Amino acid sequence: MNGIEKLLRPRSVAVVGASADPAKTSGRPVAYLQKHGFDGRIYPINPKASEIAGLRCYPDVRSLPEAPDVAIVLLGAERTQQAIRELAELGTGAAIVLASGYSETGDEGARRQRELREAAGDMRILGPNTIGLVNLTDRITLSASGALELDQLHSGAVGLVSQSGGILGALLSRAAARGIGFSKLISTSNEVDLDLADFVDALVDDPATHVIALYVESIRNPRTFRAAARKATAAGKPIVAFKIGRSESGAQAAASHTGALAGADAMYDALFDETGIIRAQMFSDLLDIPAALASARKLAGRRVAILTSTGGAGTLVADSLGMAGFELPAPDADTGAALRALQTGDHAALDRNPIDVTLAGLQPDLLRGAIRIVLGSDQYDALVVIVGSSAVAQPELMADALRDSLASGGKPVLAFISPHAPRAGEILSRYGIPAFNAPDSVSAALSAMWRVHVASKLHAEPSLASPVPTPMLVPSPSAAPIADLERGSLDEAQAKALFARFGIPGVREMTVRSEEEAISAATALGPRVVLKLLSRDITHKSDVGGVAVNVAPEDIAARLQQMRADVQRHTGHAPQAFLVQEMVTGAAELIVGVHHDPLGTALLLGMGGVVAELVRDTTLLLLPEDGAPLSAQDVEAALRRLKTWPLLDGYRGRPKADVPALIQAVQAFARMASAMQEQLLEAEINPLFVKPLGQGVCAADGVAVLKD
Amino acid sequence: MNGIEKLLRPRSVAVVGASADPAKTSGRPVAYLQKHGFDGRIYPINPKASEIAGLRCYPDVRSLPEAPDVAIVLLGAERTQQAIRELAELGTGAAIVLASGYSETGDEGARRQRELREAAGDMRILGPNTIGLVNLTDRITLSASGALELDQLHSGAVGLVSQSGGILGALLSRAAARGIGFSKLISTSNEVDLDLADFVDALVDDPATHVIALYVESIRNPRTFRAAARKATAAGKPIVAFKIGRSESGAQAAASHTGALAGADAMYDALFDETGIIRAQMFSDLLDIPAALASARKLAGRRVAILTSTGGAGTLVADSLGMAGFELPAPDADTGAALRALQTGDHAALDRNPIDVTLAGLQPDLLRGAIRIVLGSDQYDALVVIVGSSAVAQPELMADALRDSLASGGKPVLAFISPHAPRAGEILSRYGIPAFNAPDSVSAALSAMWRVHVASKLHAEPSLASPVPTPMLVPSPSAAPIADLERGSLDEAQAKALFARFGIPGVREMTVRSEEEAISAATALGPRVVLKLLSRDITHKSDVGGVAVNVAPEDIAARLQQMRADVQRHTGHAPQAFLVQEMVTGAAELIVGVHHDPLGTALLLGMGGVVAELVRDTTLLLLPEDGAPLSAQDVEAALRRLKTWPLLDGYRGRPKADVPALIQAVQAFARMASAMQEQLLEAEINPLFVKPLGQGVCAADGVAVLKD
Repeated sequence: MNGIEKLLRPRSVAVVGASADPAKTSGRPVAYLQKHGFDGRIYPINPKASEIAGLRCYPDVRSLPEAPDVAIVLLGAERTQQAIRELAELGTGAAIVLASGYSETGDEGARRQRELREAAGDMRILGPNTIGLVNLTDRITLSASGALELDQLHSGAVGLVSQSGGILGALLSRAAARGIGFSKLISTSNEVDLDLADFVDALVDDPATHVIALYVESIRNPRTFRAAARKATAAGKPIVAFKIGRSESGAQAAASHTGALAGADAMYDALFDETGIIRAQMFSDLLDIPAALASARKLAGRRVAILTSTGGAGTLVADSLGMAGFELPAPDADTGAALRALQTGDHAALDRNPIDVTLAGLQPDLLRGAIRIVLGSDQYDALVVIVGSSAVAQPELMADALRDSLASGGKPVLAFISPHAPRAGEILSRYGIPAFNAPDSVSAALSAMWRVHVASKLHAEPSLASPVPTPMLVPSPSAAPIADLERGSLDEAQAKALFARFGIPGVREMTVRSEEEAISAATALGPRVVLKLLSRDITHKSDVGGVAVNVAPEDIAARLQQMRADVQRHTGHAPQAFLVQEMVTGAAELIVGVHHDPLGTALLLGMGGVVAELVRDTTLLLLPEDGAPLSAQDVEAALRRLKTWPLLDGYRGRPKADVPALIQAVQAFARMASAMQEQLLEAEINPLFVKPLGQGVCAADGVAVLKD
Repeated sequence: MNGIEKLLRPRSVAVVGASADPAKTSGRPVAYLQKHGFDGRIYPINPKASEIAGLRCYPDVRSLPEAPDVAIVLLGAERTQQAIRELAELGTGAAIVLASGYSETGDEGARRQRELREAAGDMRILGPNTIGLVNLTDRITLSASGALELDQLHSGAVGLVSQSGGILGALLSRAAARGIGFSKLISTSNEVDLDLADFVDALVDDPATHVIALYVESIRNPRTFRAAARKATAAGKPIVAFKIGRSESGAQAAASHTGALAGADAMYDALFDETGIIRAQMFSDLLDIPAALASARKLAGRRVAILTSTGGAGTLVADSLGMAGFELPAPDADTGAALRALQTGDHAALDRNPIDVTLAGLQPDLLRGAIRIVLGSDQYDALVVIVGSSAVAQPELMADALRDSLASGGKPVLAFISPHAPRAGEILSRYGIPAFNAPDSVSAALSAMWRVHVASKLHAEPSLASPVPTPMLVPSPSAAPIADLERGSLDEAQAKALFARFGIPGVREMTVRSEEEAISAATALGPRVVLKLLSRDITHKSDVGGVAVNVAPEDIAARLQQMRADVQRHTGHAPQAFLVQEMVTGAAELIVGVHHDPLGTALLLGMGGVVAELVRDTTLLLLPEDGAPLSAQDVEAALRRLKTWPLLDGYRGRPKADVPALIQAVQAFARMASAMQEQLLEAEINPLFVKPLGQGVCAADGVAVLKD
């Protein structure tokens, strides 16, 4: 067994700094190990006690009779380092360090944390500042979390990795109350050694874990994390992640707009998207969605039946499902007739969905029949049963009826509990029927199940996406040396020349330095042209009066003089050079930028123009690692995420834009980013004109900043 | 007492169709009245029993010893009508009709419902299809809701009106579990007589009700509802409404885009906005927000302190508050020093917010001190305390410390409960400290408190909004007769002529019927012009090739020929007339439309152009009732709601747009809508060009459809 395997399933546990008082934090681990039924060897270590909880107590690490698989270290930060050194020398598999006072407290703590790492040598460490690890599959609690005071902890198929110990305890306690079971819960916290990615990887290998839930503060090792996430996808184990830090503001824009439009949180969206991770939007989703995915039942379509015996709550759930894009067809003639045959009174409303079986709430046989009919109908892909007020006094009544009906096929069955009836929810969850208290949780759960279904089909049939030809238009990066490029901020013409080396055409343009040159350029490029300031220092040209559009050759001399004066007034410097460009009309305008982030390098794609900028209609596309090419399918999928995608796709009788050429240009931009890596600090085309189908694209303006 | 007063506080209650079996629905009302302590007179009516629950039972309505204040009618729909007639004859104040089978079931039920109304005469009716009414202030339960099985029902300051009986029960049960108290709960359901507006009005007059919560399916009487909502605002009683039907698709667009862009749910936003109602976004908000507003403590600023003894949950709440735009400043030197003086260890992190007082969770005195310091600091406007795992085993410990600290000033104090600790939440709620289980509930509650604060300041100082001059540019509607107008769909020129009568200028244009006329018009209006098809039948001109921009006089004859051919090809008809218009450049483009809806007439305002259309950057502004003019402040506030508002406001060095002229044009459009009312089926300007400040606005295209 390696260190992680020993951590997850130890046969021997040393508890360094154990207290005989179970009310103290340092008294808890031994007490919890015993209480929850650990059947391996426990070695309390405390020089002041000879026995703790009926176990022989050892004075120090060196006197242990064997090298333990795991040591839980409960000492303060000052004394922890020595204990870690001794445990490592003994050959301990892994240590769990609870002490705080490390990198979370500042520079001094960060130094202490580095020393801790050195002291551990080859021994693996969980923490520091962790609340530990709980293996409910095997009833091994290596934790001081107060949530372990609970008597009843359900084991189940959800593995949790949390970067916060407090959240681990909160989720364990909340899940226990709802009958939701975990396989393993791990708090990684400061991650001096073992991190999120290590445990995702380990949980993929854990047969008891079918779904992985993550509470993420910050991903420290994106590369290993992406690999672990892909391994989970390949194994068919969905990952659901809740990420805090949504309110952090993005990086400040420098020369390009890309930084301002990207944002730190949007990078997590891009990372989760690329790796197939389902993002929990609400904290409650982090329990609700995994609970739903842990049921073995699969959603294969978007048609949902709602069965209710209380009008209001059915409508509430229907409204939420409708918002999430699910279909709620009314029962067809056959299904309606079958349902009607069950009823004796005239109360049931069977011609609509929610299907109202008014009296079924108190008549379990009636309910069993109705469920069987709906699950047996080809009309529906899933069933949501509304649990009404009868569940308060008789929680088993409806739960048992629901459980009995599960044998009818494998469609998902979910429950919404309308009153406060926690016992009914707990029973349903333990029966494998996900039960929710909020209508939006029902739609979040079904939406996640649908995503898993779509992903599994894509995985099985990768050719589903529309094929787009990807000829190599360009000299490959190695054939386009960039060593000759200037450094620092390039001017617009240099930036577009760089992009052109990778195969992205620019607008026709000429650099001019005088009125005479401008007139001849405008005559060549006209009938109308664009006149722009050309400068390495000023990238926001329009802010200083440095852009004029729709200029006729006969007006360009005067316009240039005016621009020279405007720019001088704004900047204090007389500009030396200008660009005269052809006017491109009838094209869609996009922004394409490269964004470096601790999580990886991404392309920002968005509709150009000021309106799109204000509404932030942009998306991020994480580049594959190791410079692998970006697939045309991924680029097209990213473009289709834009709200303004219809502008490229023939909206309202417009000509279709040249999307194949756009995709090639984006792929070329990605090749440039991969080839130049960190050397290319910033790069952006804004706008990239996308002309009608068959006419290609051209970069009308660009920014590039190279490392000095 | 009038009928509603008798309903809310009856001294005598007849129960028609009462059963002696309290397990039956018809046995519940008498049992609940007794159980919850009604001290008035109860008259069960049932010909088959002489005594029910120790009370004398009457064979029929006529044999009652007095006209009761209220009758609860538990009979089926068939027998209800006769009972209602007899109760009315006797002089009963009001009847509560539980039977279903009325308008909710179709035409036959609707007929039955009309007959019920007639049978009642002057007697007021709640229902039919209602679960009844609960007055917890006076412990009078006039309901068969199973939620009344609960022994403990807290009375409180929240009055609930629900259009669903099932939801009333769900909320009562959920609130009871959380220690949230209601004053009155009323289920109006089919609303044959008394409706939502009647009870909002009554709850404003109810001294025990401080906040009104509404569960809305559909507002049947917008006029009385708006009046009641305004009365609530004036009385300082906030209204929180959850509205279902969010997933309903909007009205189908006809000639204009307005209908498609408006949408049924957006009209509710406009109505709630106009009347100052806070919209609950999540179903859980319908309890959480009123619970927070019911506390007497007021939020006066946006700076929030979070006090935590468990790291993860504090960050979770901070993240949610940050997303909602609250500020979380770290303690300043004085506050930090005071907090540090409380501590003995070195565990607390006092230089940041969330303020982490690690051990305070187990040391109530320490917590009391920390709360007192934060509430006493000028730095903060509100405090959120994170309740950690100690609350599971010792729910009173932290709750009591929190209660004791409330004496320090009147700033809001809220609690977030991290583990599953329902008892702690219940105690806190009953102490008047709103307690939440979801981080987003904390920010929803504080956001609502902030809205109440802003509204109260606006109410106190109505001149806070920036003044905009509103000269009367136009002949008043009475001076602009519209009797001469054509009926049906007007052509573009006629539509703009109509708008001009109300003071909205149009672009300069000429109607032409031949190439020769087009050339002379283009020469007069050039250098470049717009050429358009002019037709009463075809409103989406560009879809049939009927729009050409940037046309030079020398090209217009050829262009007109081409357009004639294009339109003929698309429509099968050769067009007879065209418009030649001046080209307007450098102006912002808006859409202004009128939208008739059952809730009222609204203006749709939005940025024009295809991008804004795709991202739906529009807002609805409900017109005042009775044709009162739309204020400049309201128009400006609506424009500022647009994401693209910066385009009008000098974004990135652009010239500021003529917003005063735009506001006047919108007011003029509103005057037209008020003057013409239902006669104007549709009207839309799209685009309305807004030129730089001082240069005014002009309508470039328009649609108007008049009633035949």
